[in-house]
Amino acid sequence: MPVKKLNVAVIGVGAMGKRHAENLRGSNIPEARLVAIADSSRERVEQVGDELEVEHRYVNYADVLERKDVDAVVLTTPNKLHAQNIEEAAKAGKHIFCEKPMALTLAQADSALAAVRKAGVQLQLGFMRRYDPGYKGAKQRILDGEIGTPMIFKSIGRDRQPPNLSFYQGGTNGTLFITTCVHDFDLARWILEDEVIAVHAFGGAVMVPEFAQMNDVDAALVNLKFSRGGLGNIEALRKSSYGYDVRSEILGTKGALFVGSVHSTPLQVLSGAGMAQDVMVNWLRRFTDAYLAEMQDFVHTILWDQPVPITGEDGRRALVISVAAERSYREGRPIAISEVSDGVAASGA
Amino acid sequence: MPVKKLNVAVIGVGAMGKRHAENLRGSNIPEARLVAIADSSRERVEQVGDELEVEHRYVNYADVLERKDVDAVVLTTPNKLHAQNIEEAAKAGKHIFCEKPMALTLAQADSALAAVRKAGVQLQLGFMRRYDPGYKGAKQRILDGEIGTPMIFKSIGRDRQPPNLSFYQGGTNGTLFITTCVHDFDLARWILEDEVIAVHAFGGAVMVPEFAQMNDVDAALVNLKFSRGGLGNIEALRKSSYGYDVRSEILGTKGALFVGSVHSTPLQVLSGAGMAQDVMVNWLRRFTDAYLAEMQDFVHTILWDQPVPITGEDGRRALVISVAAERSYREGRPIAISEVSDGVAASGA
Amino acid sequence: MPVKKLNVAVIGVGAMGKRHAENLRGSNIPEARLVAIADSSRERVEQVGDELEVEHRYVNYADVLERKDVDAVVLTTPNKLHAQNIEEAAKAGKHIFCEKPMALTLAQADSALAAVRKAGVQLQLGFMRRYDPGYKGAKQRILDGEIGTPMIFKSIGRDRQPPNLSFYQGGTNGTLFITTCVHDFDLARWILEDEVIAVHAFGGAVMVPEFAQMNDVDAALVNLKFSRGGLGNIEALRKSSYGYDVRSEILGTKGALFVGSVHSTPLQVLSGAGMAQDVMVNWLRRFTDAYLAEMQDFVHTILWDQPVPITGEDGRRALVISVAAERSYREGRPIAISEVSDGVAASGA
Amino acid sequence: MPVKKLNVAVIGVGAMGKRHAENLRGSNIPEARLVAIADSSRERVEQVGDELEVEHRYVNYADVLERKDVDAVVLTTPNKLHAQNIEEAAKAGKHIFCEKPMALTLAQADSALAAVRKAGVQLQLGFMRRYDPGYKGAKQRILDGEIGTPMIFKSIGRDRQPPNLSFYQGGTNGTLFITTCVHDFDLARWILEDEVIAVHAFGGAVMVPEFAQMNDVDAALVNLKFSRGGLGNIEALRKSSYGYDVRSEILGTKGALFVGSVHSTPLQVLSGAGMAQDVMVNWLRRFTDAYLAEMQDFVHTILWDQPVPITGEDGRRALVISVAAERSYREGRPIAISEVSDGVAASGA
Repeated sequence: MPVKKLNVAVIGVGAMGKRHAENLRGSNIPEARLVAIADSSRERVEQVGDELEVEHRYVNYADVLERKDVDAVVLTTPNKLHAQNIEEAAKAGKHIFCEKPMALTLAQADSALAAVRKAGVQLQLGFMRRYDPGYKGAKQRILDGEIGTPMIFKSIGRDRQPPNLSFYQGGTNGTLFITTCVHDFDLARWILEDEVIAVHAFGGAVMVPEFAQMNDVDAALVNLKFSRGGLGNIEALRKSSYGYDVRSEILGTKGALFVGSVHSTPLQVLSGAGMAQDVMVNWLRRFTDAYLAEMQDFVHTILWDQPVPITGEDGRRALVISVAAERSYREGRPIAISEVSDGVAASGA
Repeated sequence: MPVKKLNVAVIGVGAMGKRHAENLRGSNIPEARLVAIADSSRERVEQVGDELEVEHRYVNYADVLERKDVDAVVLTTPNKLHAQNIEEAAKAGKHIFCEKPMALTLAQADSALAAVRKAGVQLQLGFMRRYDPGYKGAKQRILDGEIGTPMIFKSIGRDRQPPNLSFYQGGTNGTLFITTCVHDFDLARWILEDEVIAVHAFGGAVMVPEFAQMNDVDAALVNLKFSRGGLGNIEALRKSSYGYDVRSEILGTKGALFVGSVHSTPLQVLSGAGMAQDVMVNWLRRFTDAYLAEMQDFVHTILWDQPVPITGEDGRRALVISVAAERSYREGRPIAISEVSDGVAASGA
Repeated sequence: MPVKKLNVAVIGVGAMGKRHAENLRGSNIPEARLVAIADSSRERVEQVGDELEVEHRYVNYADVLERKDVDAVVLTTPNKLHAQNIEEAAKAGKHIFCEKPMALTLAQADSALAAVRKAGVQLQLGFMRRYDPGYKGAKQRILDGEIGTPMIFKSIGRDRQPPNLSFYQGGTNGTLFITTCVHDFDLARWILEDEVIAVHAFGGAVMVPEFAQMNDVDAALVNLKFSRGGLGNIEALRKSSYGYDVRSEILGTKGALFVGSVHSTPLQVLSGAGMAQDVMVNWLRRFTDAYLAEMQDFVHTILWDQPVPITGEDGRRALVISVAAERSYREGRPIAISEVSDGVAASGA
Repeated sequence: MPVKKLNVAVIGVGAMGKRHAENLRGSNIPEARLVAIADSSRERVEQVGDELEVEHRYVNYADVLERKDVDAVVLTTPNKLHAQNIEEAAKAGKHIFCEKPMALTLAQADSALAAVRKAGVQLQLGFMRRYDPGYKGAKQRILDGEIGTPMIFKSIGRDRQPPNLSFYQGGTNGTLFITTCVHDFDLARWILEDEVIAVHAFGGAVMVPEFAQMNDVDAALVNLKFSRGGLGNIEALRKSSYGYDVRSEILGTKGALFVGSVHSTPLQVLSGAGMAQDVMVNWLRRFTDAYLAEMQDFVHTILWDQPVPITGEDGRRALVISVAAERSYREGRPIAISEVSDGVAASGA
């Protein structure tokens, strides 16, 4: 019995896009066929194409969209292009998997969402942490009632290395509040099954003063208030001196959940000076399972015509919190979410 | 050669005062002599007196202060009495070890500090965490330059059980911002060797709604901004569903320090359901070493006439942050420390 | 530039063989082409063939060996067939990757090794732990001199579920000493870079009495003595009540190394009863990275005509220790390795 | 109401004896009165006496025994004197707390036990691990049936520093099998509630070759067989390159227990090189709680005339296993316990 197949193209094959391409090509998602890749860099698209043996390679996104045999696109382009790329894919009738953030502004997001709705295609956001065995297990424990009502959500997201300056060339690609905190804001909504109603943020160019010149911060601490009385705090750091570190604590009325680990390798080195272990290097290593699982889920969902689990509306709501957090930082006051958005995108979910 | 001795009285012998009395009586502080204890409860003072074999027992603090052979008092009375008790002891010419918080208001604190200065006695605050091997080790690492400049301070303080309602009888004993956060505010100043310049707090009666009726919160999240650009966040929780939990993370330009552990006993229980460990029960267990070390230090400091390591001014500065955090919570806006206090107590340190 | 390819067939597609097939088919080993699979079960070979989209499927191993386009075979057949399968593959001129143990007896092993040598093909043994980031890192630390001279090797290997009785049908497939301990014996040699000269074993049907009827044990404790004075102890357990658990401790003159972890998911569940974590479920999860890395190495080694890193001679030497350990258990006395084997296989390495 | 008091003398005030003296003097055992200390070194007994404010100080054990006001003695003399000291104390009608091992030979042990029985005094052995919260908790879990029947006992005992050569002056003070393994042999009996019936030991001067000249080993690996089919392995190491390390694993039919931790301070230091923690320094730190609890228990037991929980017979049985293990090492063969001792001491328990 032949397996039904989804033909997918990956747009943008930097580190993240390449990983998606590998997962789509590999035996772990037999229902997917990687038919094409695209990247604005000819050199990169050829190199990845050779390595992964992908026949069709493009430097223009439009050329991919013209292919009739492409059912879906995976968007791993620069953040500033996400919303526009979503619109274009939607108009071409392609299903869409898009990396976070879905847009840099709410106007962009609303325009993209309108295009998606009009085209009747599916859009899944790349909040892969929801697929991590740790976070997924935490969610299941909550659904099982193990910690009672979750009321406090704490989360940290520390990157080992900040983006280099080219990240800022040609206009912003999103500040720390948008590029990194958006992960935690999505988790916060998903874990507490509640909406954030107000935020307060302190931030600064704490570790690398140069970020101030980019009108960005390298450290952010965002207090959260939820509609049902819950509280939260999110920390994001662009340059962690020791390594990549994503961890969360969820406190409920009957119990608590801690997610994450700082270690990468099960090796402990002992000497008279004490015990040493390595730490997590980067997101590709930490979330290997999650990246595979989200892509499997996307492919299955599209193939069997199910509603996607992480929608464009989820992407927009997380973005709203990001925008509010950034405004709080800039204006030096708490921001009610209602100041930023009076609800879901115009035409509603 | 006879050892020089410091004669000490412990005022208030609830759980905390009793622990101090035990430490003062034990062989670990041979330079101390526990000469008297006092407690407003006759029953309690007699019971502890019997158990610890203390000859002189009082229900009136004034009677202790009249004893010529008492060199120093340890104040473990209710929070609302701390400032007044300090003043009385100072007037009687006794050196003072006082539990945190030193007062409930800045006016009280200033009055107490003035009395201490006038009397020329020493006042040490009971921020015992500074003596914990974990926190003390962290401080040493920072002094040794191991993590570069510490820029971000994160801390949690979760109590297993909230105070019972009697805590609120006869007027406030201090809200969560003052009774619990004050520990973390002291740590923040001490670890970063910097002063907090602004705070923002969200809070609520999250786990136990009844706290709202007491005009208190059971959960607080306080964002901190430091004078040299550093950032911080403090979480305090009156009722942790799983146990007592005090942990901190300090992020520096070259490295980071994590302090604390959730476990109490070195025992892991494994079954098909997974691995289980116990968690820390309470502060007396977690900070056993610290409580002993701070009292040793106090006794030695007074005996050898050294400046105390944790001064009344330290107590006041931590209190200022507490007051600012509580105001931020109540007024719904960030508070600059300068709004609360224009500096150190009137006559300066 | 086309990538040079190695055409591989996997023989036996139970859980282990299927994993190798997945790795060979996936994008992580682009230099490999999975051309055929075989299994004595028609149903299983068809199911795995469908799932992994392998065109050529066989129930007879001989049919695979006749294919001219097969460069190498991966043997994941029952243990009792390993030696014979190696011989057959060698005669057919195929390179061989063989799961441990390479044989059940030294006579079998010697015959297989002779065939390999005669045919001039390569044979790599599936001691995948050497490729685990933990064990590999440990080895590197030792080579870097970090722990001085490693002198003591301790290791445990606990399986969650014992093999079912079918494992014993049609004659032994190897006792615990041979099927499980052989992993640790290989590690012992590799880590200490020394040879075991004597063993002593206690064993028993400790958890599942039925194993006694199979002339096997479900628990073994094997003391090791090395030629340069080092010591060791290996524990193997067929039925661990809590989960899969492989850990080792290596003690050197200047430091020590601990390898392994009991946990599978980075999630901690806390309640008033304490903290709970999951445990490792099975070897496929624990050694995901290692299984991929060993197959990558095998493919590269054969393609570029390098000496394989884990030779048939390594397989034989580990088997010798297994045979000695089993004899020690049966005869109730320490066994010198020289009693079992007077050296390497007849014609030398 | 005056508290009933037990008058105790501590004999031998090296590090261990001093700790016992501190515990007996402190407020944690109010029912004990430390009336005298003795040590063959005049300098040491005076120094400890000054520090702990003990009035009566002796260099001759006999002088202590003559004191009518001494109810019990704590023996922390050199191992070689334990049995003789027990006999002398028994003859003087004193109750006895004796550090392990109770003797160096079975003949010595039997003579001492006979004297104890004849005098009708109580003798408690200093197997303090039974009082450690970790080991005590493990025992309780077993009694509660949490792990089913415990069948396998693994234990390690690694000392940071070996005894210096003076330990061997004037005749043996006990080899590693007797001084260190005896702890684990006691645990093995207590945890499995079973008797060891056979042992096999490999040993060597692995880390410090000089131990061979002392007719001792610095490393021992002892396989154990229990009467009901259980198995075990004990590792002892005189010189651990990284620190003090005592850990055990107990495997039952339904679950398992791990006891111990390598860390001393709740502090983790992170940098680009990874994460570092300290390790346990020595037994006084690791077993602080246990040393206090065992002495509390001894004092209470004697005062209220209860049977001591760890008897001379326990001391003898652990010694028997030590003797068998040493013989196994020296004769190169497994030793049945029945070869060493045909049962309990002559006149029975």
